[in-house]
Amino acid sequence: MPTDPPIEVVALDADDTLWHSEVYFERTQRRFKELVGRYVDAEVDVDAAVVAVEHRNLEVYGYGIKGFTLSMVEAAIEVTGGAIGTDEIDQIMASGRAMLSHPVDLLDGVDDTITALDDAGYRLVMVTKGDLHHQERKIAASGLADRFERLEIVAEKDPFTYRRVIESTGVAPAAFCMVGNSVRSDVLPVLEVGGHAVHIPYHVTWAHEHVDHDGTVPTLTTISELPAWLAAGAA
Amino acid sequence: MPTDPPIEVVALDADDTLWHSEVYFERTQRRFKELVGRYVDAEVDVDAAVVAVEHRNLEVYGYGIKGFTLSMVEAAIEVTGGAIGTDEIDQIMASGRAMLSHPVDLLDGVDDTITALDDAGYRLVMVTKGDLHHQERKIAASGLADRFERLEIVAEKDPFTYRRVIESTGVAPAAFCMVGNSVRSDVLPVLEVGGHAVHIPYHVTWAHEHVDHDGTVPTLTTISELPAWLAAGAA
Repeated sequence: MPTDPPIEVVALDADDTLWHSEVYFERTQRRFKELVGRYVDAEVDVDAAVVAVEHRNLEVYGYGIKGFTLSMVEAAIEVTGGAIGTDEIDQIMASGRAMLSHPVDLLDGVDDTITALDDAGYRLVMVTKGDLHHQERKIAASGLADRFERLEIVAEKDPFTYRRVIESTGVAPAAFCMVGNSVRSDVLPVLEVGGHAVHIPYHVTWAHEHVDHDGTVPTLTTISELPAWLAAGAA
Repeated sequence: MPTDPPIEVVALDADDTLWHSEVYFERTQRRFKELVGRYVDAEVDVDAAVVAVEHRNLEVYGYGIKGFTLSMVEAAIEVTGGAIGTDEIDQIMASGRAMLSHPVDLLDGVDDTITALDDAGYRLVMVTKGDLHHQERKIAASGLADRFERLEIVAEKDPFTYRRVIESTGVAPAAFCMVGNSVRSDVLPVLEVGGHAVHIPYHVTWAHEHVDHDGTVPTLTTISELPAWLAAGAA
C-alpha cells in the first residue's frame, strides 16, 4: 500500500490560532449587554438577539468586525423596540472601532512554534477568513508576515477554497496540513479534499463555528505541540 | 532604442469600470440627506459631514459599504447632536444592506469588450479593492468570473500592490496594462512601476479618489474603445 507523501506545507489559521480574537468579541458583547440591558426586561436574552441578527446578516455582511458592529446596532434597536439612545449606539460603534484598532496579541508559544516549523523546513502559509483590510492590518502588526511564503485571506473556508489554496502551493493534498481552532472551518473541509488537518481548540468558540463531529479529528492542546506532531507523521 | 514588449496582460478595475457602483453610493447619500435633514438646519452640509467621518475612519474601516454605513450612522448622530431617531438609523442601515444586495449592473459595452479582448488573446485579470465578501459576491453575480484568469481583491491600490500583481502574472511591467476609472488608484501607481495604464472616467467619482494630475494620462471615453487602443499600441 502506498504511503502518504510527507507534509511539506503547513497552513495556519490566524484568529484564535496565532493571535487572540474571539475574546475581544466576548468583551464587546458584555459591554453591549450593559448598554442595552438598561432598556430591556431582565428576562430578555440580549446575547441571543445579537446572534440572531448576526446570523440573518451573514450572507450580506460576511465575516468580520464591521458586520458584527452593524448587527449589534441593529439588534440594539430591535431588542429595545427603538428605545435605545443614540449615545449608546455611538458607544456600540466606538467599541467596534476599538476592536478593529486593538493591538495584535499572539497566543502563547506561537512565535517559537513558527520558528521551529521554519527551521524544520516546512513551507508556511496563513489562511484566514474575514475582513480583508482588518486582516491585512493584523498580519502587518503581528510581525509574522515575513515567516509565511503566502497569505491567503479568503471569504469562506470551504472545500472549494481549500482545493484552490492547495493547488496554488503546488503540492498534493496529502502533503498539506491545515492547523486551526475551528473544526468546522479549519479541519473538516480540508479532510474532505484529502489534506491533513489538526484542531487546536481556543477557549472560546464563536456560535457560528460550532459543529457536531464524531470527536475523532486530530487535536492538540496547544500550538507548541505542533512540530512534534508533524515530525511524528501527523497522526 | 529597444521598443516595449507588446501588452500581454490587461488588468481591469471592477467598480465603475465593469459595473456601476458609485451611483448607488450617491443614491444612498441622497436618502441619507432626507433622513437627517429633518433634524438639522438648512445650512448644515450633511454631505460634508459624511465625507469627514468617512475620511476619519478610513484607516480603521478600509473601503467598502459596511464601513460607509457605519460612518453614515456616526455622521447622523454627530450632525444632529444625537437627535436623530433610531427609526432613521435603522433606515440608514437598511440602505447599506440594500446596496450590498443590489444586483450587479454591467456598464454599456463591457460584455462585448471582454469578449473582444479574450478573442484578441490578451490574458485578463481583475484588480479591485474593497470588501472581500462583497466583491466576491459581485464577481460571482457579474457572470464575468470565468473570463478572467485571476481575480485580485486588494486592500490598497498602491505601487507595492501593483508590483506584486504584475509579478504574479509573470510578465514584465511593460507588458501589463491597467484599465480603470480612477486616475489615483488605477493609473498613476501603475505608471510609477513601469506598466501601462488607461483612464476611463465614470460620470461620478468618489471624493476620496479625486487627485490632481497634469491631464496627460491616457484616457478613453468608453470601454468599447479599449481593444482598438490596445491594438494600436496603447498610445
